[in-house]
Parts: sequence; C-alpha cells; structure tokens
Amino acid sequence: MIRFNCDYQEGAHPRILEALVRTNLDQTCGYGEDEVCEEARSRIRALCAAPEADVQFLVGGTQANFTLLAAALRCYQGVIAAETAHIAVHETGAVEATGHKVIALPQVDGKICAEQVDAFCRLHFTDGAHEHMVMPKAVYVSEATELGTVYNREELRALRAACDAWGLYLYVDGARLGYGMASEGCDVNLPFLAQVADAFYIGGTKQGALFGEAMVILNDELKRDFRYTLKQKGGMLAKGRLLGLQFNELLRDDLYFELSRHAVELAMELRRALQALGVSFLVDSPSNQQFPILPDAALKALENDFSYSYQQRMDDAHSCVRFCTSWATTREQVDALIAALQGALRK
Amino acid sequence: MIRFNCDYQEGAHPRILEALVRTNLDQTCGYGEDEVCEEARSRIRALCAAPEADVQFLVGGTQANFTLLAAALRCYQGVIAAETAHIAVHETGAVEATGHKVIALPQVDGKICAEQVDAFCRLHFTDGAHEHMVMPKAVYVSEATELGTVYNREELRALRAACDAWGLYLYVDGARLGYGMASEGCDVNLPFLAQVADAFYIGGTKQGALFGEAMVILNDELKRDFRYTLKQKGGMLAKGRLLGLQFNELLRDDLYFELSRHAVELAMELRRALQALGVSFLVDSPSNQQFPILPDAALKALENDFSYSYQQRMDDAHSCVRFCTSWATTREQVDALIAALQGALRK
Amino acid sequence: MIRFNCDYQEGAHPRILEALVRTNLDQTCGYGEDEVCEEARSRIRALCAAPEADVQFLVGGTQANFTLLAAALRCYQGVIAAETAHIAVHETGAVEATGHKVIALPQVDGKICAEQVDAFCRLHFTDGAHEHMVMPKAVYVSEATELGTVYNREELRALRAACDAWGLYLYVDGARLGYGMASEGCDVNLPFLAQVADAFYIGGTKQGALFGEAMVILNDELKRDFRYTLKQKGGMLAKGRLLGLQFNELLRDDLYFELSRHAVELAMELRRALQALGVSFLVDSPSNQQFPILPDAALKALENDFSYSYQQRMDDAHSCVRFCTSWATTREQVDALIAALQGALRK
Amino acid sequence: MIRFNCDYQEGAHPRILEALVRTNLDQTCGYGEDEVCEEARSRIRALCAAPEADVQFLVGGTQANFTLLAAALRCYQGVIAAETAHIAVHETGAVEATGHKVIALPQVDGKICAEQVDAFCRLHFTDGAHEHMVMPKAVYVSEATELGTVYNREELRALRAACDAWGLYLYVDGARLGYGMASEGCDVNLPFLAQVADAFYIGGTKQGALFGEAMVILNDELKRDFRYTLKQKGGMLAKGRLLGLQFNELLRDDLYFELSRHAVELAMELRRALQALGVSFLVDSPSNQQFPILPDAALKALENDFSYSYQQRMDDAHSCVRFCTSWATTREQVDALIAALQGALRK
Repeated sequence: MIRFNCDYQEGAHPRILEALVRTNLDQTCGYGEDEVCEEARSRIRALCAAPEADVQFLVGGTQANFTLLAAALRCYQGVIAAETAHIAVHETGAVEATGHKVIALPQVDGKICAEQVDAFCRLHFTDGAHEHMVMPKAVYVSEATELGTVYNREELRALRAACDAWGLYLYVDGARLGYGMASEGCDVNLPFLAQVADAFYIGGTKQGALFGEAMVILNDELKRDFRYTLKQKGGMLAKGRLLGLQFNELLRDDLYFELSRHAVELAMELRRALQALGVSFLVDSPSNQQFPILPDAALKALENDFSYSYQQRMDDAHSCVRFCTSWATTREQVDALIAALQGALRK
Repeated sequence: MIRFNCDYQEGAHPRILEALVRTNLDQTCGYGEDEVCEEARSRIRALCAAPEADVQFLVGGTQANFTLLAAALRCYQGVIAAETAHIAVHETGAVEATGHKVIALPQVDGKICAEQVDAFCRLHFTDGAHEHMVMPKAVYVSEATELGTVYNREELRALRAACDAWGLYLYVDGARLGYGMASEGCDVNLPFLAQVADAFYIGGTKQGALFGEAMVILNDELKRDFRYTLKQKGGMLAKGRLLGLQFNELLRDDLYFELSRHAVELAMELRRALQALGVSFLVDSPSNQQFPILPDAALKALENDFSYSYQQRMDDAHSCVRFCTSWATTREQVDALIAALQGALRK
Repeated sequence: MIRFNCDYQEGAHPRILEALVRTNLDQTCGYGEDEVCEEARSRIRALCAAPEADVQFLVGGTQANFTLLAAALRCYQGVIAAETAHIAVHETGAVEATGHKVIALPQVDGKICAEQVDAFCRLHFTDGAHEHMVMPKAVYVSEATELGTVYNREELRALRAACDAWGLYLYVDGARLGYGMASEGCDVNLPFLAQVADAFYIGGTKQGALFGEAMVILNDELKRDFRYTLKQKGGMLAKGRLLGLQFNELLRDDLYFELSRHAVELAMELRRALQALGVSFLVDSPSNQQFPILPDAALKALENDFSYSYQQRMDDAHSCVRFCTSWATTREQVDALIAALQGALRK
Repeated sequence: MIRFNCDYQEGAHPRILEALVRTNLDQTCGYGEDEVCEEARSRIRALCAAPEADVQFLVGGTQANFTLLAAALRCYQGVIAAETAHIAVHETGAVEATGHKVIALPQVDGKICAEQVDAFCRLHFTDGAHEHMVMPKAVYVSEATELGTVYNREELRALRAACDAWGLYLYVDGARLGYGMASEGCDVNLPFLAQVADAFYIGGTKQGALFGEAMVILNDELKRDFRYTLKQKGGMLAKGRLLGLQFNELLRDDLYFELSRHAVELAMELRRALQALGVSFLVDSPSNQQFPILPDAALKALENDFSYSYQQRMDDAHSCVRFCTSWATTREQVDALIAALQGALRK
C-alpha cells in the first residue's frame, strides 16, 4: 500500500532526526525560551525580512489557529472564512469552543475574495442592529487552500485593503505554505506575506518536520502577551527546543523550499498524466493536492495498492478523490500510481 | 408615529399591571421558588398536558436560547438551525460564546426540514473523520419563524423522527409561539409541542408580558440541574415572582390565546388589503409578521407616520419590509396604516 | 411570617408601578435606545458629575458582573476579588463560564485592600513564569460588601492607585450601593465613585426597583462596543424602556437615597437593640445587612414568625445569621422582630 | 552549567530516537489511529490490568488536563484541587478558559484529603442555595504532587470513597507518575490506579520521552466521544504514531520504571547529602523533586554552575529552592552538585 491520502504520514526529513540525535542530551531551558528557538526566530525574521516580527512555535495547525484567534478577538468578535475553511469544517469547532463565531462566506475553489469581505462588513457596520450580530474582526485564509488553490499577491493585497477599510486582522493559515508558494504561478513569498498579513504561520507538520508550526506575528496588538494564550491553550511545548531545532533545519540552505518544490513537481506530473488520460478535476490546483474525478470502478481497482482521501460523490458512477504528494513522496511512488491509474482507466 | 416595526414596543396587558400593583408588597422568597411561580408552573403543565414537565422562567429570548443550549450540549456538540435562525444571526453569537457551533442549514421561507437534518447527520456520522467536525446534538426551530411562517404537526413529527434517528434534542424557540399557534392552518398546540419537543419556551415578551419566557423542559436529561445553568447565565431573576405572576395572568382564561388571535387577525387584515393593492410578499406568512415588497417611493411616503423594519432590498426601486402586529395593536392603527398604504401605492 | 432573609422580596416602590401604568401603551423602540433610557442616562451622568460616562442598563447583578468582566478581559486575564466576593462564591461560576479566573484573595470583613492587590501583582509580574499564570487585569469590590461593610474614600483611592500601578481596571459591584453610601461614616458618593472606578453599577433590584442595574462606564476602553457584549450575554432587555423608567423614578427627587437611608436606619435600630441585649456580631456592619451571633434556641423560637438567612455555625449552641432591611421594611416589622428577639434571648 | 531546575531539559531516551530513525519513512494513517498507537494502547492496558481502558495520547500535561476536564464537566460543574495544584496555579487558567472553576482547597504538603472533599461536598449539596454555586464534579490530584509528595493507596482509596459518595470523578495527573510510583514507601502501581481513578495519565514528557502523555480512561462516561474533545482542544497530533512509538519504547522491558527509579535514587542521594549538612526541607519529598531551604549566600555561590528553580523566600537570609533529577541526570552531575553544596554551606 502506497499512501497518497495525506501529506503527514511519514516522519521527518533525515536532517531533523540527525539534529535530534546530535543534540539529545543538550540541556536547555523550556517553553521556547532557549537559544535554539532564538536561532530559529532570527532565521525566520531574516527570511521574512521582518526584523520586528514575533515568532512563536506551536505543535499543530488546529492549535495554531484557535490560539491566534483567541488571542486576537474580544468576546463579541468573530472571524470571516470560506465555508470550506479548515477552521469552519475540520477542527471540531475549536474556534467556537473559545467563544468566537466562524462567519462562513461562500467560496469559489476554496477561496474568498476582498469584495465579499468588503460587502459583508459594509452590511454589518451600516446595519442599525449591528450590535445584535457578531462583529467581524479577522479574516482567515489558507495558503494553499483546502482545495489546493493559492492566493496571489493581487488577491492578498485586495484582502488587506478590505481588512484595513473595516479594521480587521488578516490571518493566513500556512499549514501548506511551502507547497502553496512553490505552486506554478504563485508570486507570494515570505517577505510579501510578512507585509500583507497581521499574522501567519509557516507549516512544519506537512512540510518535512515531525510536527510544529511557526507563528509569525507582525501586528503589535497581536504580539502583546501572546505567550499567555499560547500557554493557556496547551501550545507551549515543555521542550520547546524541539520546535526551534526543526525549523532551524528546515529553513537552512533552502531545504524547506526545495522539499516544497519536490512535492509540487510530483503533483504536477500526476496531474499531467491524468489530464492525458482525459480525467477532469474538481478544481484546477497548482499545488500538492490534486482532486481528480474518477470512475468508481477505477478507484475500486486502486484500493488495495494505493490510499487516497475521498472528497465527494459527483454522480452515480464518479467520485472526486484527493491525492497528496509531500516532501517524502518519491518519483517511484508517483510513477506506480500513474501506471495503476492508466491501467484502471483504460479498462 | 404609529409603530409596526416590532411586537415589543408597548408595556404589558393591563391585567398584568393590575396584578403587579395588587401584590406589590407581598413578601416571597426569591429566584423562582415562590408560590406564585409554582402556580404558574402548574398552570403550564396543565395547559401542556405534561404533568412531568419542568418549567423555568427566564427574562428574554436570547437568554432562554443560550441557556437551554449550554445546558444541553457537551463541549464538542453543536446545534443545527436554519441559516436565518435567530440564534444564527441576531444574538451576537451568544451560542458560540458558550462554546458551541450553530450549524446553519439552508432554509426555505425560514424553515428547515427533517430531510435536511437527516442528510446532514448521515453525512456526519458516516464520515470517517467525524471526530474532526462538531457533533450535531440538537435541532433548533422557531414557531413562528423569523419570516412569520409556521411548522405544522407533520413537519414537527418528521423533525422529531430525524432527531430520534440520530440522538438529537428538538428545541423550539417560542418567542412568538402564541402568534404561531393562532395562525391560519396551524394545527400545533401546547400538548402537541410537549409531546414532540425536548424543550420549548412559551414567549411572554412579545405576547403581552412586560418581559419573560417560560421554558418547558420535557426530556429528563435536560431537566437535570438546569437551574445551575439558569443562575450561571444570568437568567435566575431575583424577584422570580414577577415572572410567575405574568404567566399566571396571561395563561388564565385563555388570555394568551385571545391576544394572539387578535394580533394575527389584524395581520391578516393588513395582508388582504395589501394583496388587494397588488402587492407581493417575500414569503407567505400566516402570522403576525408580514413581509410585503413595496416601492421605495411608497415607503418614503409612510416614514413620518409609521415605523416598520427594513428587511432587504429587492431591486432598484423596491424593498421588502416587515410590519408586525401584536397583542397591543388596535384596529384603528391597522386601518390607518392600510389607508396610508393605499394612498402611497395609488400615487 | 415577616421576612428579613434578603432585600429583594417585595416588588417596587409605588412610584415605579405608577409610572409603569401611566406609560404602559407608549410605543418606544427597543433595546435601551429609547428616550426614556436616554433621560435616565442623563440623570445618572448628572448625579455622577460624569458627563462622558456611558450608562447601560442590565436586568440583574450576576448578569451585570459577568457581562462587564467578559467585555473587559482578554482570554488570559482574570479578576482579583475577595474570597467571599459574590462573583467568587454565589454566581455559579458565571465569570469562569466566560473563560476568566476569579483570583480570590483572603478578606477581612468581606474586604480586600490595596496592599494585597499590590503584593499579588508584584509577585505575578516579577515572576519569570508569569506567562504560566492568569494575568490579573481587574479588581472587583462591592459597595457594600457581602458582609455589609463598606469601603471608604481612602480605601478606594488606595485601590485605584494599586490598579494604576499595575494596569488593572477597578470595578465596583453596587448591588447595594445606596445602602452602602447611606451607611454611617461612609464618605463615598456617586461623583467620587465615577472618579475612582473604571466602571460600577447602581443597583436597582435590591434598592426599590422591580429589577435592574445601571452600569456606569467611565473608562473609554470599556465603553467601546460594550453593547455587543450586553446583547450576547442576554442583558439587552427587549423593552429597555422598563429599565430607564425605573431609574428615572428612583433617581428623581432623592428617592433612591431616601429609601437607602430608611433601610439603614432600621438596620441600625435593630443593631442597637441587639447590642443592648448583649449580642455580638460576626462583623461590624454599618449598612442594611446585620450578622448577629445568636443562640440556636433563640433562632428556633423565631422561626415561625420571622425569616432570616443562615450564615454559619459559630459553636455548638450559636449560629451567625443575617437580617436584611430594605426600602420596603417598615418600622413595625423591625419593632416586631426586636420584640421577638428580646423575648427569645431573655428566656 | 548543570541544570537541575526541571525534569524536561534534555531530549529523550536513546531508544526512542533509535525507533524514530528506524521507522521514519513508514507510512501510517494519522491522528493516533495507526497500528503503532494500537500497540501502545495494548501495552498500557496490559500494564494497567485494565483490558477495557480507553487510551488516548496527548502532547503535553496542560493540554491533557484541560482536555480531560472539559470533556468530563458540564457547563456548571467544577473541579476540586489543592490550592497548589498545577491546574490551579501554573496553567494560565486553562481550565477556567474552558468555562470551569477550579475549586481550590487548602493543602498540606501539596496534598488534599478525602475528609476535605467530603466536607466541601456536604456543605455544597446540603446548602439551600447550592444552585448559586459551582457544582463540584471532579477531584484532581497529582502523583507525585507539585511538592514531590505522593499519595498512597489508603489515601487514594479514601478519595475514591468520597468521590463515590458525592458522584465525583477522580482524575490523577501523572506528569511525574513514574517518579511518584518509584518513591520510597509508595505502594501505588498502574493496576491500582486503574482501579481507583476514573482517568489518569502516564506522563512521558518528564519521564524519558521527547513529549507525550498517555491518558488512561476507565470510566465509560469519560470514554464516550473523548476524541472529539481531543481534536477540538488541539491534542490530536497529526502524526499520532510519534506518540505511540514513544510509549512503546518507554513501556517495554520495564524501561519507564527503571528510569524512574534511577532519578529517584539520585534525588535521595542528594537529600541524604543535604541532610548530612544539616539542611532542612520545605517538605519531606520522597520523589525526584527536592525542596531544601538554603542560605542565600550558598545559592549565590552555586549560581554560575548549577541551575535550580526558586520556590519561595523563607526569611531574610534563606530561600527554598527546587532541585529536580530526571531519567537523564547522571551520578556525576549529582556528585558535582553535592560537592558544590558542601563547599558553599561550609563556608
């Protein structure tokens, strides 16, 4: 069985394990206040061209999202997100559990746009009964989205402008940030994100680390006392060094970006092969997640040898599924999948 | 200025004020444990043919909703409601502020149906990743709805069956319960509600009381320790007697139902007059809220003499607005409105 | 049975009922935005000599407390209070239910002092691990306290200074504010409170109203968007006019203060009579709550004719109980109680 | 600098790193549903002689505590704990942030006893106003406590009986469970804990793992739907395998217990050496945390070479500090500390 169902099924890039072994008995203070974390912070600030950024490390994406939002929002405020957003659908109501509504807007290919945010806020703030509704105070987007699509600079700049117009924070979930930035045609990079967002995180878990997300906070209001919330929400790892160490390895010598490009290239290869077979896609994804629409019979033929995640039924005989590549996917694995798909589809 | 913008702009039915004056210096214990509240409880149990029901009094509708739901739900559970439901839109995220997601389903004329609930739950509970999503545990409907429409017995029985199939509570917001039950063609009454719902409340604020809602709890699981939550959420009125007294007056001698019929009759009169003028409606409401679509010019002509609430823009020259009648509305007020509308529309 | 167990067992001062009856069919807009509430706001600002104060009306004290604190605190902040404070003991964890710890400090006669606050904050903010502890951000005191004692100007000024030193809000629960201010030796008045506190409320429920508390917000940070939280927490009464009306009556012609003095005078009479009988007290209370320590036999002798609230056991044969007077207590009732106590104690 | 300030400053036991390296590219499904976690679950069930136990893995102790308690408690319920308990003091109000009060009881040597729990509950449930107070529903204890002391079987059985009498859950925080069970005179083992507690966790972070805590849930009520809460609170690690793997290594061949005994032996050595020097202790701790009271001058003399954590000031010239040993502490490190202390104290 070769697994393509997600991008977090292996361990970590070998360099990370080597560093763990090499430094195992180093004694450091805890909670991310050690020199290893400090080095990672400096590295991230440099890569983001954001010398004033606050950088804090968390263990996972759900935790990163609800911690940042809980710290950012007052009790009557909510966050705008696509109806397909991870926080809206796949975090068991973690944001609501901290007391805040996720205000879900309709999406196109997993994305929301500045016009929607602007229109929603105009409606809210000009309504005489606005005190009876949750006040929008943040916009959440993912780069790449749940459907593998990416926001480009123009779209993010427009969202920034809408946020500025209505006093909202712009927060970018970067669980797959590397894969997003490595996508064909994506013009977003870390310094741009650091200029356009109030906070974003650089995903580690799906991008070559054992676990870990690096939250980059640009807005001073969000920096303030953030570590209290980090502790309260369970995100302050006792051996914080483990997080600093992983980001030090990933972000040294371009490794993070190299691994991202690797995964996206393999995904593009898979996409081209499927297109050559006449397969259509739910959405035109330029990143490491591909959503082909396949005959159920073909999927049946694959299921003993390859795993995928089921997305949705399209009609009586077809389903959309997701194949993910990752930093750990090999060309041989993709070739095997392509060969199997060719066999299954030509039957 | 005659106000039709809502159904809570006057005080209370005179009988209530008389009772307040008459009993003003009676000394009772607090917090709804007095004999006046006990009498109201007995009265409500009898009217509901539900001798085992727990009855607790709250001050307002938002409070009633979030208190009942907070008591009913565990931290990972949410409540299904129409996307137009009061809890989804007009309570400033009160339910989310207690930690629970409002799972908004598409509505037709302000209503959701059993098939939707069933389909949503099937999708949830058969999804391998269901632990990553909020578990549905309750269904919220209003009688009448935000759009004035009403659920009939068949619809509520079907919702009950869907709730039973998936282990959900059925909760009915009765802010306008009298007006709903007095609607033409509505076959729902209190004993039926007491059979079909796990909990519902009999609205007082909009139905002739100064304030107050009577929560009727049928399901033993929801009865248990409810008064702890009532106190915690601010709903346990120190002088609880005031709530018991009001429901005693309203529910004696059919007054509640008489006042409800009065308001609905006046609303129907308004509707017929508008229909005669060729006006169309956003929704075919049989209860005390009417949603005509009117030329902006006609609305402009009314605005110095009559208040209404603005619902939504329909096109460049037309808007949908809401006119409410209530227990306090007089035939003279409605006649004046009709005359003014006739004048404005015939221009 | 004459009730002395609490100060909220009757209805309201007759002037309030008269005003309710007189204005019953007046139509006003809802939610406290009507002209009656505006008049009450102006009246309160004038009495407080605080023309910039925001005034919002709530239904009850528990609601007032958790609503103000939820609006004031960020998710990692808590409120300092005496271990006997109402929010610490008698609100079913309402503040915690909004996510905030009540940091309980030891009390003397129901009070905490500036030195305690200062010492606690010093310990917190100088601790290297302060991020692992709830950040203190507000101080809660009651005037009068749960034990009937009162803070004087000097004590409140010192608390203010401690709050300023550490960036805390000072919030005063005024459920019995009139009784506190009418106490012998109490030099606090409304203008002083408006200068020293960030927010406080003028209690109505226990002071002559049917229900209602007037929150006076002095600090601009706390004013901002307060009504969103008010709505979310269930405190925005639909017929807000009812609250404005009651405070208009109470605060006109010195009525509030007159009623307060009346209750305190009767309490002092009771105290002197008990002292003359050689009774000692749990605490030396100058306000409307008295806490005598009585032989159980004497209490037994009273119990068919008088109610009191049980405070605590002192020894095998003695208990401390609470007698409350209120605006509604009559001299005859107090005389009857004194006579009964004389009889019971002389046996 | 040799660090004795805490027991989580190194990485992990080498066997864990070896297993990580060996299995790094194994593909498993996520979220703890993989076969590695299943193996760890079986192992833990066997060691606990609890074949029906549910075992779930979390990343850290604060997370483990608030996740279990949030899952266990209804909105009006709280948890009883020592005033020095980790959840009461050092988790930034994480439990309160989920809406639940930590009911702090006075402690002796970091412990609470059955009599206290019983007395508190009796007072609560027999109070006529109990609905105005948080309902106690769980008791939290740590094994070992924050002060290094341990509960023995008799004490835990008595707590169990008190919990049974009042319908409370008994929850044991086992962040240092191995060190506690390895303490001299401690007769508690895993099967006993599995009989006496409703839930407890086996600490990994401080006991030889990189990170991770294994929650063992015995009570069926707490098992139900626990993984929803686990996900919502951020505790469901994407690469759950990492947690299973670590517990498989630790709990194989007695390693966990061996490492625990090692740390406790070194702590006892330190204790004996200090006793021989005439040093007294804040508390008589039989486990890996020692709390000697030392002259400030001696501490000053140590500070360049050894780290400790500061506990509290005892008098003008003496402080109590904490020295921790751990699985990673070497005899040489302890000998060096002893030698330095001998030098510093004999000056």
